[in-house]
Amino acid sequence: MNSFDNVSVVKKANVYFGGKVTSRAVLFPNGEKKTLGIMMPGEYEFGTEDKEIMEIMAGELDVMLPGGENWITVKGGQSFEVAANSKFKLVVKELADYCCSYIK
Amino acid sequence: MNSFDNVSVVKKANVYFGGKVTSRAVLFPNGEKKTLGIMMPGEYEFGTEDKEIMEIMAGELDVMLPGGENWITVKGGQSFEVAANSKFKLVVKELADYCCSYIK
Repeated sequence: MNSFDNVSVVKKANVYFGGKVTSRAVLFPNGEKKTLGIMMPGEYEFGTEDKEIMEIMAGELDVMLPGGENWITVKGGQSFEVAANSKFKLVVKELADYCCSYIK
Repeated sequence: MNSFDNVSVVKKANVYFGGKVTSRAVLFPNGEKKTLGIMMPGEYEFGTEDKEIMEIMAGELDVMLPGGENWITVKGGQSFEVAANSKFKLVVKELADYCCSYIK
């Protein structure tokens, strides 16, 4: 799937970490929400409200999942899940183009 | 208008200048195309094919339009136009969140 069709896109970007992480919200007719975003190389900690599925379309990062003990390397074409109401850490090693799905 | 509705969004980002400028394409039912993008502070030169209307939603930059002699400051909430098949220079002073419309 190269594009999301019949969706709404929020014009204004979400800007985090001084712009090193930015995203835009995509809203689906069934109420589902995703964000399409870019992470520059750097270290970040994020908190979740919903369960999230992070699809890394390009780039490379290491992720420390909630309660995890080891860093996991994730490359373009791979995904990872994060539980709701938790925190996870990322070390982005190569500019990451991502799609995050929020699961209610 | 806070969102674009009933559109298609290309999943993969367009990445320029090592990721300091990124955008995503939004395609409208009538064939119109816009990109929503982020420019980190820095200096850039762009070339146009179509005429472009650049709406700066947030941030601040100086633009040197094709054939121009002076830098023009553009802030969030302001726009500028660039002729087709031309080049323009930008000095982004504050992270810019933009919407670019391509006019056939």
